Amino acid sequence: MKTLTAPWWTRWIESSSLLRFLDENLRGVGQVMFQDNPLSGALFLVGIAWASYAAGAPEIVLGGILAVLVATLTAYWLHVDDASRSAGLYGYNAVLTGLALLTFLAPGPLRWAYVVIGAVVSVVAMLGTAHALKAWGVSALTWPFVITTWVLLLAAHAFSGVTSVLQPREITTLAPAFANPLAPGDFLQGVLQSISQVFLKANGVAALFLLAGLAVSSIPAAAFALGGAILAVVTAHLFGAESDLITGGLLGFSPVLTAIALGTVFAQPSVRVALYAALGVVFTVFTQAAMDVGLTPLALPALTAPFVLVSWMFALPRDAWSRAATPRHFADG
Amino acid sequence: MKTLTAPWWTRWIESSSLLRFLDENLRGVGQVMFQDNPLSGALFLVGIAWASYAAGAPEIVLGGILAVLVATLTAYWLHVDDASRSAGLYGYNAVLTGLALLTFLAPGPLRWAYVVIGAVVSVVAMLGTAHALKAWGVSALTWPFVITTWVLLLAAHAFSGVTSVLQPREITTLAPAFANPLAPGDFLQGVLQSISQVFLKANGVAALFLLAGLAVSSIPAAAFALGGAILAVVTAHLFGAESDLITGGLLGFSPVLTAIALGTVFAQPSVRVALYAALGVVFTVFTQAAMDVGLTPLALPALTAPFVLVSWMFALPRDAWSRAATPRHFADG
Amino acid sequence: MKTLTAPWWTRWIESSSLLRFLDENLRGVGQVMFQDNPLSGALFLVGIAWASYAAGAPEIVLGGILAVLVATLTAYWLHVDDASRSAGLYGYNAVLTGLALLTFLAPGPLRWAYVVIGAVVSVVAMLGTAHALKAWGVSALTWPFVITTWVLLLAAHAFSGVTSVLQPREITTLAPAFANPLAPGDFLQGVLQSISQVFLKANGVAALFLLAGLAVSSIPAAAFALGGAILAVVTAHLFGAESDLITGGLLGFSPVLTAIALGTVFAQPSVRVALYAALGVVFTVFTQAAMDVGLTPLALPALTAPFVLVSWMFALPRDAWSRAATPRHFADG
Repeated sequence: MKTLTAPWWTRWIESSSLLRFLDENLRGVGQVMFQDNPLSGALFLVGIAWASYAAGAPEIVLGGILAVLVATLTAYWLHVDDASRSAGLYGYNAVLTGLALLTFLAPGPLRWAYVVIGAVVSVVAMLGTAHALKAWGVSALTWPFVITTWVLLLAAHAFSGVTSVLQPREITTLAPAFANPLAPGDFLQGVLQSISQVFLKANGVAALFLLAGLAVSSIPAAAFALGGAILAVVTAHLFGAESDLITGGLLGFSPVLTAIALGTVFAQPSVRVALYAALGVVFTVFTQAAMDVGLTPLALPALTAPFVLVSWMFALPRDAWSRAATPRHFADG
Repeated sequence: MKTLTAPWWTRWIESSSLLRFLDENLRGVGQVMFQDNPLSGALFLVGIAWASYAAGAPEIVLGGILAVLVATLTAYWLHVDDASRSAGLYGYNAVLTGLALLTFLAPGPLRWAYVVIGAVVSVVAMLGTAHALKAWGVSALTWPFVITTWVLLLAAHAFSGVTSVLQPREITTLAPAFANPLAPGDFLQGVLQSISQVFLKANGVAALFLLAGLAVSSIPAAAFALGGAILAVVTAHLFGAESDLITGGLLGFSPVLTAIALGTVFAQPSVRVALYAALGVVFTVFTQAAMDVGLTPLALPALTAPFVLVSWMFALPRDAWSRAATPRHFADG
Repeated sequence: MKTLTAPWWTRWIESSSLLRFLDENLRGVGQVMFQDNPLSGALFLVGIAWASYAAGAPEIVLGGILAVLVATLTAYWLHVDDASRSAGLYGYNAVLTGLALLTFLAPGPLRWAYVVIGAVVSVVAMLGTAHALKAWGVSALTWPFVITTWVLLLAAHAFSGVTSVLQPREITTLAPAFANPLAPGDFLQGVLQSISQVFLKANGVAALFLLAGLAVSSIPAAAFALGGAILAVVTAHLFGAESDLITGGLLGFSPVLTAIALGTVFAQPSVRVALYAALGVVFTVFTQAAMDVGLTPLALPALTAPFVLVSWMFALPRDAWSRAATPRHFADG
């Protein structure tokens, strides 16, 4: 849902092509969590920047910013429809691609070439995915980010010019999962970092900025994000997932996105919708655990693929759980 | 094709919502082999129960029963269309999911939670798959079972609360296939167990119950099942597959389903259709062998994925082999 | 685009069903590189034959010829539409399947049974894929070849009757990529062998025959093939891919096909189209590198899957880069 479109704001933005460009890019950041809102995007960026500096890797936020700028320019080049581009729908996959490449690749100049190519390709992937999914009435979600980043990270193992920091391991070498009792502090940390890991960061303060960015645009979105994080942490702990993964937020970020998507984007919030979204959140936790195991030999992170696959499966039969829902968050593919 | 719908039966079933619920669940079991027939379902259940007790694991058939009951209730909750639900189309994936989870997970209380979640999700997966495939005129087959069970089994490696009995192995550690001469007794065993393995059991008596369950509903279905099993065993042996796999029915159960689907469900039986189905059966044997190898490092069984993938590929160009065929076995997705 | 349809040729071909059959098969070979032209097919065949003899494996070209003959007969059996069959659209996947099976399987009689089955199934796969993709306006490309060959090669590890010459390896055992300086001779070799590897051969003379076969049908196709090969070699070298892979053409054959497809098949050539195709070529290099790594544990070659996946993704949003383009190279699925 387009927000922050008060007349004065629109007039101000429309007064300068640079401001309009800035607005589009901020909305692109906001769309990572489905918010077509430049203020959300700005707050998200502050959170990412905070977490990047805190982790001693300020270049990560720069990778995200570079990527979204390149992607928006690419969208102009490819003549995508104005409404989708203005809503940031060609930017959010690039932000994530930039952050992921800077996170999972060792320093080196070609890493930045990777970011630029990844950002450009993410726009093509978005166009292709949106077009392919049109007939089904589901949106592309973060699939363009996932597929682009997987290809680039896997290719890095064949290139001496870029180096992945992830090493392939046999599944047989995985330590057995060990679930410690979860103290209240660990629980809180797990919930917050499940939110911040949407942007690939383990940082509680960043999570607060993200929640604030959601709340300024949509209180239900913030509530579903928080609820999804809590349910994900509880589910993962109940089935005995590794405590470090839980408190690091690594089993919760995909479920957070599933909660927002199924609870507020594909349908109007209601008790019935909330129950259905909760089921989706639980199954996203399982899918995240499954893909973490399955991708181990390829040294690939699951990224947000569990969110995408589960949300597609759960969104396809929309009539079954939400007859009155109208799809939002679509690009004209 | 809906069978056993004689007026007296329909009146009797309609006389009580409990009987109607029972009828729907039995049809759900019957639909595992495409039979919309409660008597087929009952005979299948007897076969599974026999094999479960014979194997000293009576809880397996209970897992299947629990799953189909949960799935039918879920179908009510999700307001699926009455015709599909009454025909058992929201139950058959759950039966298989329940049997598979009880077969491949070590005992423990959370195993039953897994069955309940798997059964509920299998209904969502069925709705989503049916909706996605509608435009192509092919049915969901057992894909919802495959994808739900794969996710849950793979996730078990990340959870201490549930334990898979399957261990990941490197493909390089696979012993070279060794094909012994196949004595008549081994051949017969291979054929029968190819049929019983549709329900994940290696048991000749169970196979006879399954054949009887098919025959009461459709003689062609029983004939194609038997013919598919024979052709699969011969093909696998000819190319030198491991004899233990052949006699255990592990290369034949997917081809049995392909034979029924291509020979009797997607088209009216004819010589031309039988030839086409035979080609599909042969390629399903190869696909089963291929997926068995390919999934070794993930410790995942191929389940009926080879049947699903080959049958989709062969069913898509229906005009090419059976101009007059009318699709059956569809859920309104 | 159908070429070589001068009236005298058409009259001559139509004068004999044997000549018509020959014409269809030669067009089938030509369609591997998108040329509906029997002279292209003949020149391609000469190139493959040359490379097969030069490599001391003349049976390879025979495998390709057997496969295309079987596939064309299968297309008659399955009553595919005449126009597609006459244009060779049911033959090109079989040629490649035959060549690949003879290349990657050790000698033995069942290898030829494999070729026949693969050729027959490739036609079904083509029908199924074309039908599935119809709504999206993209063509099947070489996906039927890829999926059929993958299944057959992977299954070989489970059969004692056929033996794959490829051995599964752990990704961890991959030597680090080592990029030597690329001498002009190495560069030229890499470019030419990127073209000949479309037919799974590393042979510069064969590449010249292939370029000639393209040029007699379409000068732009030949130009895009050469340009794609050059750009692929430069990209792979720039990112530090293993020099042996580059000079062997193993990172360039998929990009060559992407260049022809995006530059001349899906759109009329133009500067804008060329830029877009160049982006596709670069990303195909990355995808080829990624799939080479990812498929290592399965002992599967990536075949032309990188070309197929990238071309689909880039072709889907056709409106975005080429508003006036009319799709060509379609089978009526």
